[in-house]
Amino acid sequence: MTSVAIRSDVTMDQAQMVLEASVRKARELNLLMNIAVVDVGGNLKSFTRMDGAWLGSIDIAIKKARTARLFDMASGELSPLVQPGQPLYHIEFSNQGLITFPGGIPLKDGNGQVLGAVGVSGSTVDNDQLVAEAGVSAFHAMAA
Amino acid sequence: MTSVAIRSDVTMDQAQMVLEASVRKARELNLLMNIAVVDVGGNLKSFTRMDGAWLGSIDIAIKKARTARLFDMASGELSPLVQPGQPLYHIEFSNQGLITFPGGIPLKDGNGQVLGAVGVSGSTVDNDQLVAEAGVSAFHAMAA
Amino acid sequence: MTSVAIRSDVTMDQAQMVLEASVRKARELNLLMNIAVVDVGGNLKSFTRMDGAWLGSIDIAIKKARTARLFDMASGELSPLVQPGQPLYHIEFSNQGLITFPGGIPLKDGNGQVLGAVGVSGSTVDNDQLVAEAGVSAFHAMAA
Amino acid sequence: MTSVAIRSDVTMDQAQMVLEASVRKARELNLLMNIAVVDVGGNLKSFTRMDGAWLGSIDIAIKKARTARLFDMASGELSPLVQPGQPLYHIEFSNQGLITFPGGIPLKDGNGQVLGAVGVSGSTVDNDQLVAEAGVSAFHAMAA
Repeated sequence: MTSVAIRSDVTMDQAQMVLEASVRKARELNLLMNIAVVDVGGNLKSFTRMDGAWLGSIDIAIKKARTARLFDMASGELSPLVQPGQPLYHIEFSNQGLITFPGGIPLKDGNGQVLGAVGVSGSTVDNDQLVAEAGVSAFHAMAA
Repeated sequence: MTSVAIRSDVTMDQAQMVLEASVRKARELNLLMNIAVVDVGGNLKSFTRMDGAWLGSIDIAIKKARTARLFDMASGELSPLVQPGQPLYHIEFSNQGLITFPGGIPLKDGNGQVLGAVGVSGSTVDNDQLVAEAGVSAFHAMAA
Repeated sequence: MTSVAIRSDVTMDQAQMVLEASVRKARELNLLMNIAVVDVGGNLKSFTRMDGAWLGSIDIAIKKARTARLFDMASGELSPLVQPGQPLYHIEFSNQGLITFPGGIPLKDGNGQVLGAVGVSGSTVDNDQLVAEAGVSAFHAMAA
Repeated sequence: MTSVAIRSDVTMDQAQMVLEASVRKARELNLLMNIAVVDVGGNLKSFTRMDGAWLGSIDIAIKKARTARLFDMASGELSPLVQPGQPLYHIEFSNQGLITFPGGIPLKDGNGQVLGAVGVSGSTVDNDQLVAEAGVSAFHAMAA
């Protein structure tokens, strides 16, 4: 028998708890955020937008989460590589648009396998990253 | 003085409660659904996908909700109008794609003003509609 | 600990063997085909086009495979449902284009869980379906 | 008599051997790659994704191969020309997206005529290029 690849996937309950933890962090920092979770296949799993958050950040939050899953790294890790003259300059033209600044982070299980990703947009990239990290921490706490 | 239009909008908490009521109904009917809520501007407000629900229904749920808000009517009300020979034949080519079968329903306040919409996809259109109606009922209960 | 959803996925070796079995069947029937395999997330896994096969069938083969995975059913099962006056009329406007005629079939493990899908295009839909079925049979033979 | 242009084209068997040689090289270097071959018309001929390779590299591998055939040069040769202030700045907006960093290489016959191209994505651009070169070498060995 030929073996198949086994992949774990983020569940709806986990995705909702990632959203809730991110919203809590955003409120603590007095920010208005869009938060997206994609699954192991890069497909949208859960999304929410806080009242008054930027409309333009809907797509950015989703694209950050997708970018993090598509390359299994934080979206911000791509930032230095996509600058003019750097190796991945204009990679954003692929995959119907990527976002290569901070705010997207993979969700991993205890073995480091990527199950999906969270993406946050609505403030500075530093704040976006902080709020995404709160979502990731909640995910790890669930899995612990 | 120039007066401005005042529009109410669905809140994040309301949108999340619409999702939760829809998920509850889906579980009661033993269905796996994708559920989307759009705001008064037709923009994505909240979304969730039950574990194992069709991947192809992510986009359909969102498009049903958008369609319902873009024309302030249930998506299924468009069905007879878009058939061959009928007045709105091929309206789906507009707005980067519409879905004109049941499962999308506007969310209205007590005065009948549209504040957003819910869209459900994952089963037969009759089941999709039932689950969307559960979301609408929860919305009205909140506003009552 | 919150449990995660476990999904199996089609491997590269399995995908290549599905392509090879489909090409063998096509040659037996004297047909020129495009054959695509998508993974559990609906993403392209393997593809090949026989020499002289229609260029227009590249996208159709891929879309048939995606459609079969996105709805966990053969693309041809959608055909009666998408006709004018039927419940899913114009569902093809979703998901950046679906193909709802025969030639796309899910790849399932022994428990009936969908791991991906194969899509074939290049001849009549009956021939497309026959060639796709040869790919599915090879997949099951591998997994047996 | 009206003469027609005679173009040679990469065959399916050649394309599959380019994929196999690229996969062999990737395994030798312990890399997980997406590999695409396009034909003389720039249309997808063959594709495969190694298990665990980046999902985001599916589209990049295909776009690298297309870019290499569309301009009959290695995708990396475009890199200096597309930088800010340079002559082809933002050429990536054409052709529904180009990739202008290394990893895409034309496939040529013994007379230097381009028959298609290979594109590789999944690691650093240097590694992508190495693996693509292994595919090109295998192609030349076949034609020799």
